Amino acid sequence: MKEKRLSSILFIIVFLCGSTSMAFRQRPQPCNHLVFYFHDVIYNGENAGNATSAIVAAPSWGNLTILSRLSRFGDMVIFDDPITSDNNLHSPPVGRAQGMYFYDKKEIFTAWLAFSFVLNSTNHKGTINFAGADPLLNKTRDISVIGGTGDFFMARGMATLSTDAIEGEVYFRLRVDINLYECY
Amino acid sequence: MKEKRLSSILFIIVFLCGSTSMAFRQRPQPCNHLVFYFHDVIYNGENAGNATSAIVAAPSWGNLTILSRLSRFGDMVIFDDPITSDNNLHSPPVGRAQGMYFYDKKEIFTAWLAFSFVLNSTNHKGTINFAGADPLLNKTRDISVIGGTGDFFMARGMATLSTDAIEGEVYFRLRVDINLYECY
Amino acid sequence: MKEKRLSSILFIIVFLCGSTSMAFRQRPQPCNHLVFYFHDVIYNGENAGNATSAIVAAPSWGNLTILSRLSRFGDMVIFDDPITSDNNLHSPPVGRAQGMYFYDKKEIFTAWLAFSFVLNSTNHKGTINFAGADPLLNKTRDISVIGGTGDFFMARGMATLSTDAIEGEVYFRLRVDINLYECY
Repeated sequence: MKEKRLSSILFIIVFLCGSTSMAFRQRPQPCNHLVFYFHDVIYNGENAGNATSAIVAAPSWGNLTILSRLSRFGDMVIFDDPITSDNNLHSPPVGRAQGMYFYDKKEIFTAWLAFSFVLNSTNHKGTINFAGADPLLNKTRDISVIGGTGDFFMARGMATLSTDAIEGEVYFRLRVDINLYECY
Repeated sequence: MKEKRLSSILFIIVFLCGSTSMAFRQRPQPCNHLVFYFHDVIYNGENAGNATSAIVAAPSWGNLTILSRLSRFGDMVIFDDPITSDNNLHSPPVGRAQGMYFYDKKEIFTAWLAFSFVLNSTNHKGTINFAGADPLLNKTRDISVIGGTGDFFMARGMATLSTDAIEGEVYFRLRVDINLYECY
Repeated sequence: MKEKRLSSILFIIVFLCGSTSMAFRQRPQPCNHLVFYFHDVIYNGENAGNATSAIVAAPSWGNLTILSRLSRFGDMVIFDDPITSDNNLHSPPVGRAQGMYFYDKKEIFTAWLAFSFVLNSTNHKGTINFAGADPLLNKTRDISVIGGTGDFFMARGMATLSTDAIEGEVYFRLRVDINLYECY
């Protein structure tokens, strides 16, 4: 009788253990939460000294120094932007955001991003890699953390973007709320 | 005696449980399967109203309104294509496929893709992010699901692409069979 | 008494099992290690026959046949490079490295990469997808393995890049040390 009860308990345990290797999982709590800001100064033909990014591709109706008509559809920008811990462009940078974004919709402003945070400060050394759609007229947008190195070895998670400031066609600042759900 | 048997059973259980956190895993069953179609109408200089994509970069021997010689090597296209549940361009869209592809081989047609499905229907709200090589002359091609948001929080898996229709140099329709192996 | 001890053991087991599904994990041993070399011959206006890559985008101050001033900032290259098992360009290729890189810093040489290894040999059939920052003046650089197909179904891990050879502005060879931490 006792044996029987024992074996059913064991069966349940094995089932529970097994289920952790199965694909359907409970939505977990973040194992790491980080907040950063990065600052993009787009080259406009006159700010070569300050610019941290430049348009490198555009459709046939566009050009490489002024963002296009049609909600900038097809304009691709490569950037190397300073990352700060707060929203001040002049705070000491903790790393660089390096990658690209492009505008991908004719009717409204929408972008797509692929980039890395290359962090090099006393607190964080390593990279976090991101990719995803950025419907930038929304107050917040979620993209994927697709990997990481160094302190962020094999990281996975989500990053919530919000536009913290925008100045004409030259400057914007993004707040990035990173939630990692796989940490090592 | 009984104690001993018990402890060996426990040992096996702990071993089994432990192994789920190890790296080598059984190839799992999909936890979600989705099929969508997306429709790409490439800008060719004359179809600005209908076009959902445009060439934005090309090598020095190419240009931005006609796909290049040498199997279009180096042509990069940015797209914002409607997604439908069936293979009819005129079905109500369930979202947009947004991203880029580029042709990357001189001898034959081969592409590389990075894009998101931005789904917004009664059934699905969220994004799925994809990346991978697309040897488009093959009947089916596998790319990676590298992340997701919303209903597809932290998704990972594979997508099998097949060309469902192609009309000259202006229109193609891809069928995307998505198998997710990590669901939350 | 015995029952009590049993239940505490069971509790510990359940806890251990449960923890495998939690996010914080021990840094694992690689489940697969692979070393490859790939060879990039950049089109320079005169080597159309041999070239395996071409500049397809550049900022307004650049052009598409010569890499730009300012550490090539903004130059984007699409490639289809042979992969070999050793460091000899003339060894039989085991696959192709297909994707893009772009230079993204004004002051020094730094790149960002997104590409696939499309392997097709007696040993390996399948693709491995990579993305990440490549500060190419460093002796070694880590990027992320963000997915895979075929033999590399759902692979995740890290790749360590090192520049194995470089010849002027036309040829370079990268050594890629791949460590996979999720294998199926």
